[in-house]
Amino acid sequence: MKTPPVWKGFCQTPDHSALGRDRSTTGFGLAGGNFPPIPPALSVSFSVLSTDSVSSARSGRLVLPHGTVETPIFMPVGTQGSVKTLHPAEIEELGAQIILGNTYHLWLRPGHELIREMGGLHGFTTWQKPFLTDSGGFQVWSLAKLRKITEEGVKFQNHLDGSKMLLTPELSMEIQAALGSDIAMLFDECPPYPCDEVYAAKSLALTTRWARRCKDWVSANEPRSGGGRQLHFGIVQGSIYADLREQSARELVELGFDGYAIGGVSVGEPEHEMFRAIENAVPFLPLDKPRYAMGLGTPPQILEMIARGVDMFDCVMPTRVARHGVAFTLDGPLHIKNLIHARDPRPICESAHPHVAGFSRAYLRHLFRAGEILALRLLSFHNLHFYLRLAAGARESITAGNFPEYKDSFIRRYTRSENT
Amino acid sequence: MKTPPVWKGFCQTPDHSALGRDRSTTGFGLAGGNFPPIPPALSVSFSVLSTDSVSSARSGRLVLPHGTVETPIFMPVGTQGSVKTLHPAEIEELGAQIILGNTYHLWLRPGHELIREMGGLHGFTTWQKPFLTDSGGFQVWSLAKLRKITEEGVKFQNHLDGSKMLLTPELSMEIQAALGSDIAMLFDECPPYPCDEVYAAKSLALTTRWARRCKDWVSANEPRSGGGRQLHFGIVQGSIYADLREQSARELVELGFDGYAIGGVSVGEPEHEMFRAIENAVPFLPLDKPRYAMGLGTPPQILEMIARGVDMFDCVMPTRVARHGVAFTLDGPLHIKNLIHARDPRPICESAHPHVAGFSRAYLRHLFRAGEILALRLLSFHNLHFYLRLAAGARESITAGNFPEYKDSFIRRYTRSENT
Repeated sequence: MKTPPVWKGFCQTPDHSALGRDRSTTGFGLAGGNFPPIPPALSVSFSVLSTDSVSSARSGRLVLPHGTVETPIFMPVGTQGSVKTLHPAEIEELGAQIILGNTYHLWLRPGHELIREMGGLHGFTTWQKPFLTDSGGFQVWSLAKLRKITEEGVKFQNHLDGSKMLLTPELSMEIQAALGSDIAMLFDECPPYPCDEVYAAKSLALTTRWARRCKDWVSANEPRSGGGRQLHFGIVQGSIYADLREQSARELVELGFDGYAIGGVSVGEPEHEMFRAIENAVPFLPLDKPRYAMGLGTPPQILEMIARGVDMFDCVMPTRVARHGVAFTLDGPLHIKNLIHARDPRPICESAHPHVAGFSRAYLRHLFRAGEILALRLLSFHNLHFYLRLAAGARESITAGNFPEYKDSFIRRYTRSENT
Repeated sequence: MKTPPVWKGFCQTPDHSALGRDRSTTGFGLAGGNFPPIPPALSVSFSVLSTDSVSSARSGRLVLPHGTVETPIFMPVGTQGSVKTLHPAEIEELGAQIILGNTYHLWLRPGHELIREMGGLHGFTTWQKPFLTDSGGFQVWSLAKLRKITEEGVKFQNHLDGSKMLLTPELSMEIQAALGSDIAMLFDECPPYPCDEVYAAKSLALTTRWARRCKDWVSANEPRSGGGRQLHFGIVQGSIYADLREQSARELVELGFDGYAIGGVSVGEPEHEMFRAIENAVPFLPLDKPRYAMGLGTPPQILEMIARGVDMFDCVMPTRVARHGVAFTLDGPLHIKNLIHARDPRPICESAHPHVAGFSRAYLRHLFRAGEILALRLLSFHNLHFYLRLAAGARESITAGNFPEYKDSFIRRYTRSENT
C-alpha cells in the first residue's frame, strides 16, 4: 500500500538536527543506508612524531583501515557494542579516535556470525572510526566459571547461561576477524596476582606458543577490516618478574606483530609493580611500533605510563565510576551524590564540556538521587571528555616540549586536595 | 592558586560540539552562567488560528512567558525534572515546545524551595521553553499511601519515606509558584473509576471549592513565571456523568481560568467513556481558551481527542513503553525484543529521526538484550519524535483543511496490521 500523501513528512527529519549533522562524515547507518562508506586507508602504519627529551613519552600517528589515531590516545570501552549510556555521535563529538569492543561479550551475545552478517562491528554499531577488540582471554579469566586451561585453549562455563565453551587462539582470531576490528589482540593467558615465578614462567611459555598459533591463523586467513588489513598486537606477560617480562617481549618481537601490549597489569598488584611491569617490558619493544597498556588506569597513572613510553590506553573506569556518581575533575574525583552538593549552583568542573557545563551540581545530584538515566549519561560523557582531554593534553605537550611540566602540574593538583 | 598555563584547553570546549550549538538560543546553563536569559513574552494569550470544517479540531497559538506553543501539541513528561533518558537539548531538537513537570515528585525531592533557589524549574533543569506543572493531586491519588481527603486538603504518607504530609489547594499553588512553571494546574480531586454518581457529585463540588481557593491564592500572590504571569488551568471533573461534566465546566468557567483541562480520564474507564468525558465537557468550555486532556493517550486516541476539540496532551506512554522495548510506528507498536528482529538490518521505522534511523533492528534488539542504556535512549527519542510529529501533522492538516483524512488514514494504517 502506498503511503497516503497526508503522511508526507510524518516521520521526517527536522532541519535543526544537531547530533545528526555529522552523519555525512561519520557514515552512520548501514541500516539507514544512504551514506557513503569511508574510503579505507590504503596501508596501515605507525610513525613516531615527537619524543620527550626527559621521559620516554612520545607522540605518534597510527594509520588504521578506518582512520588515523593520534597517540598517546585513550580508547573508550564499548564492551557490548555500545560505550555505556552514549550515542556513537557523542563518542565522535568527544574526539574519540578509536573504541574498544570485547570479544568475549560479543561472541556470546549477539554472536560473531550475526555481527559479521551486519557488516562487522562497524556496520552493526554504526561507529565508523577504528575499533580495537581484545582477545576474550581476560574476560574468560574474570567473568566465566570453572575455567580449565589446556594447551588447546580455555574451557569454561560462560556467565550468561552457564554453557560449556572452549576458546582457543584460532577461535579468538576467527571471532575478531568476523568482528572486523582494525586491531585484534592475540589470545593470551593472563596470570593472576600474586603469582609465583614458576607459574608465571609456564604461563608465559603458553602465551608465546598461543601467539605463534594466532600468527599462523592470521597468515593463513589474512583477516580484513573494512578495505584494509587487520592489525594484530601481541601481549607481553610475565607478571612482576623482570626477566620474564623481558623474555616475553623478546619472544613476541621475534614473532613480529603490528604493536605490543603490556598485559597482566591492573590485576590487583600495587601501583609500583604496575609501573615496573611497564618499565620491564618497554625497553625490549621496537621504537617504531605502538605500545598499549591494557585496562589502565587513573588519570595520574595514565600520565605516568605515557612518561614510560606507552601510546595507547583503555579503561572502563571513566564510564563505570560515572554510573556511581563520580566525576573526574582537575582537583581529583568528585562524588556528586554527597550532601555538600545539594544546593551548589556551580557546574561539575570549572570548564566542563558544554553538554554538561550548563547543569548545576545541585541538579546532577538530584538526578542521581531520583534514579534518572540522564545522570549516568552526563557523568559518563563528562568523564570520557576528561580522559580524552587528558590524552590530548599529553599529545600537545609532548609536541610543545613541555610534557614533564604538564604531567607534574596535573598530578600535583589532582592529588593535592580531597574533592567531595 | 592560578591555573598553570599547561592546562590551558584541558577541559575546553571542542569546536565540533553539536549538542551545544543551540545553547545561545536555549540559554542552557544557569550554573554555567554565560548565557543571556530569554526575554519574557510581554503578555500571555491564546488564539485559534484554524478550525476544521468537519470535526471540532482546531489549531492555535498559546503565548507563554517562556515561549510560544503551537497547538495541538504533545507535551513530553519530565516527572522529576528530566524527560527520562534524554538531554534537554534533545527535547528541544525533537521540536518539543513545552514539557510537563510533576509537582508531587519535585515537592518531595529535591523540594520546591531548593528549586526556587536554583531559579525555578527553568534554572534547575536548564530547559528554557515553557513548563506546565500538574497540581500533585493525581500523584497523591496514584502513588501515596493512606490518603485521607478532607475539606482542607489531602493527608497522605508519601511513597519515598512514608512521611505524613498534607497537600492543600493553597500549598499546591505555592509549590507551583516556586517551580515557576508557565502553566500551573489547579488542585483537584480525581475520583476513581468506577465511581457512583453521588460520590462523583460530592467530589466535583469539592473540586470547585478547591478551585475557588486556588484562585484566591493566585489573586493574592500573583505568581510569576520568568518575566511573565503564570497561567492557571482549571480541571473539569465529573467522572462518566454528562450532567456533572457540564456542571463542572460551567462552574470553572464562571470562576474564570486561562485554560481548562479534562481530568479523571485514563483512570481505567473504557475508551468510549473517555471520549464521552471529553464530548460532555468541551461544549461548555470557551472557544478562546486552550483545552487539555490530561494523561492521554495512544496515537489514535490523541487524534480522536483533537477531533473533539482538545488542544494539549501529555502522556508518559511514549517514554515508558520505550524503556520496555516498544517503538511506535505508522504500522502500530513494534516490539523490538522479539526474536523476529534478531537479524533484521532495517531501521525501526521507514523514516525515523536520523539519530535513530542509522541503527538496525538487529542492533537495537541486541542493546535491549544486553541491558544497554543506549537502547532506552534511542527508543525514548524515537517515540517522542513519533508523538511530536503526530501532533505536528495534525496542526499541518488542520491548517491545510484535510485533518479528517489525516486522522482516518493514520488510524486505518496504525490499527490494520499487527506489528511485532
